[in-house]
Amino acid sequence: MSSTEGKVIKCKAAVAWAKDQPLSIEEIEVDPPKSREVRVKIRATGVCHTDVSGKRAILPFVRFPAVLGHEAAGVVESVGSAVTSFHVGDHVLTIFLPHCQQCPACKSPDQNLCEKFMVPSESVGLLFDGTTRMRCNGKTLYHFLGTSTYSEYTVVDESQVVKVNKAAPLDKISILSCGVATGYGSPIKICKVKPGSTCAVFGLGTVGLGAVMGCRVQGAKRIFGIDINKDKEEIARTFGVTDFLNPNDHQKPIHEVLIEATGGGCDFTFECIGIPEVLQSAINACKTGGQSAIVGVPAEGKTVTFDPYKLLYGRVWTGGFYGGFKPKNDVPGLVDDYMQKKIMLDEFISTTMPIDDVNKSFDLLLQGKIVKAVLYFNSGDFK
Amino acid sequence: MSSTEGKVIKCKAAVAWAKDQPLSIEEIEVDPPKSREVRVKIRATGVCHTDVSGKRAILPFVRFPAVLGHEAAGVVESVGSAVTSFHVGDHVLTIFLPHCQQCPACKSPDQNLCEKFMVPSESVGLLFDGTTRMRCNGKTLYHFLGTSTYSEYTVVDESQVVKVNKAAPLDKISILSCGVATGYGSPIKICKVKPGSTCAVFGLGTVGLGAVMGCRVQGAKRIFGIDINKDKEEIARTFGVTDFLNPNDHQKPIHEVLIEATGGGCDFTFECIGIPEVLQSAINACKTGGQSAIVGVPAEGKTVTFDPYKLLYGRVWTGGFYGGFKPKNDVPGLVDDYMQKKIMLDEFISTTMPIDDVNKSFDLLLQGKIVKAVLYFNSGDFK
Repeated sequence: MSSTEGKVIKCKAAVAWAKDQPLSIEEIEVDPPKSREVRVKIRATGVCHTDVSGKRAILPFVRFPAVLGHEAAGVVESVGSAVTSFHVGDHVLTIFLPHCQQCPACKSPDQNLCEKFMVPSESVGLLFDGTTRMRCNGKTLYHFLGTSTYSEYTVVDESQVVKVNKAAPLDKISILSCGVATGYGSPIKICKVKPGSTCAVFGLGTVGLGAVMGCRVQGAKRIFGIDINKDKEEIARTFGVTDFLNPNDHQKPIHEVLIEATGGGCDFTFECIGIPEVLQSAINACKTGGQSAIVGVPAEGKTVTFDPYKLLYGRVWTGGFYGGFKPKNDVPGLVDDYMQKKIMLDEFISTTMPIDDVNKSFDLLLQGKIVKAVLYFNSGDFK
Repeated sequence: MSSTEGKVIKCKAAVAWAKDQPLSIEEIEVDPPKSREVRVKIRATGVCHTDVSGKRAILPFVRFPAVLGHEAAGVVESVGSAVTSFHVGDHVLTIFLPHCQQCPACKSPDQNLCEKFMVPSESVGLLFDGTTRMRCNGKTLYHFLGTSTYSEYTVVDESQVVKVNKAAPLDKISILSCGVATGYGSPIKICKVKPGSTCAVFGLGTVGLGAVMGCRVQGAKRIFGIDINKDKEEIARTFGVTDFLNPNDHQKPIHEVLIEATGGGCDFTFECIGIPEVLQSAINACKTGGQSAIVGVPAEGKTVTFDPYKLLYGRVWTGGFYGGFKPKNDVPGLVDDYMQKKIMLDEFISTTMPIDDVNKSFDLLLQGKIVKAVLYFNSGDFK
């Protein structure tokens, strides 16, 4: 039992008071967890484009004022009365994608979209019982993706927490909680890339570099990496890109460049940005019988237009959240793979900063100057 | 050796002189086959929407004046000098989809789109050597899909002919040459429907009914059949439809009706018409993790617009020609399955007519009064 168990905790958090405003560092109040919830002391939380898009309110799942943040690692501070699989002191990752292990989707081997993830619009920003656990200056704060990890303490449903190896460094493994796994799983779980394949990855941020790593692990022979930021070439090659393409260097549309370079198109393409025109490029760059995956999250309301003959000619267009991984089944193994040096994590992390610099980290990400920033609350958190 | 071998044959054919004109019954000249070609005496040729669309020139692969027709069964009259796998008297089906058995696509277990099928626009209407074998009144006639079976004799590349069991009735098995196989293979080869699944088939012509039959053979528990022609209900139930829906009977979009009826959407949907709005319905009617296949052939230049979140939520959108079957590998077995009563064919055939009535058969098809018409050249052909 922790000394704070059952009590409201006052702690530091970055609050997004309104759309497009800089986040504000505040002292907030965090309630104890209810029956099937866990309260986690966050030790490391990554900065993901989804947080930035949340701040800009271009995603369907944000409600202000909000505590953003979803990609994090921490330590269980206390658990609700009905929680049996977590205990105080457990090391955990918080995951935006629930894994209730009970619903048809969780029981299906073919998909990972737990029914709890399908939040109706009126429930955005609330935990599953329809209420919140955070306040600031008497005002209700809404949760973001059920995680809200830009707070030193947060309350998360037990379906959105995964217990991991205590020997793993929390700062490094925090990024398995979203971006890296989302990319890495796409060629493994969603498209099942075959050895010897030719792949193309559009967008070389954390998700794209994760996808490159997944293609390489699956035995792809040739991996095209595509980004309009020429500075991404060096790190992309570290992860396994064999051919770097900057669309700005070509007169032709990039899918035509890929079709010519491969003699007919790629076996697998991964769109890791969520831009409709790039989604079109990604399906157009596939050979007949090839597969393209939507991995990047598009802004709300954007549509994609395409030629149906692309699919009639045997292409497969699909997509998925969290790389197709089922959190409770797969995340502990990913952490172990990192510990055994089967997958890279350190190389994604460009910088670490205190939570007070969250706005600076957003700017650096938008400017393409970093791949991943990891934030901490206290200077001793990364140990 | 046949008495006509090596000679030009004069025979009856239905000629499409120009876009949207009724076909004209003519005497035409058909050259002997070149080295890797086969000349076939057509005994039965089906009427498919693709022929009607060819006449209307809304497909990318028609050039006038043309001899349409592609779904046929016949007997080999003579073979080119380099042909070793066919002999005079063999019973064959003509298939619009080549199967050269040499190219990467033919060698791949994952797709059936032989490279010979990828005809550049300047080669439309020509055989693979860039020439034609048919004339009428001194005018060149163009081939259609490499088959041109609305002629009593036609010359076809050996990659587009499949030898079948001589005991099988040619009139019945002729329809395996396109529509039935295209539909039937979709739930088997393209989407691999699982036992107990809920499926929906949009459009209940030959292709759609073939898809229903394939869903049933795969063990689907519930099969929705959707058509705006209420007269299709009875035959649809014969093939395995458990729930018939006429969109005109509902105020809501039909995908919403399906989502409500299934409690979240179908496992598999098949669009067997090729209409952009129906393609949208078919993907929207899938549950998360479900699959939708484009089976119907859209008119040239039509695009489809969709919400990329549909795929991000784990749906799979694909499609294919000829039901994903590889003709030389799979068609002889389909014929045998018919002979062993494992699949239905007779039930598709609403009427048989002489070739002289080809325009009438087109009208009946467009009016939705028949599922399949099979045409013959001589009154003794169906035996």
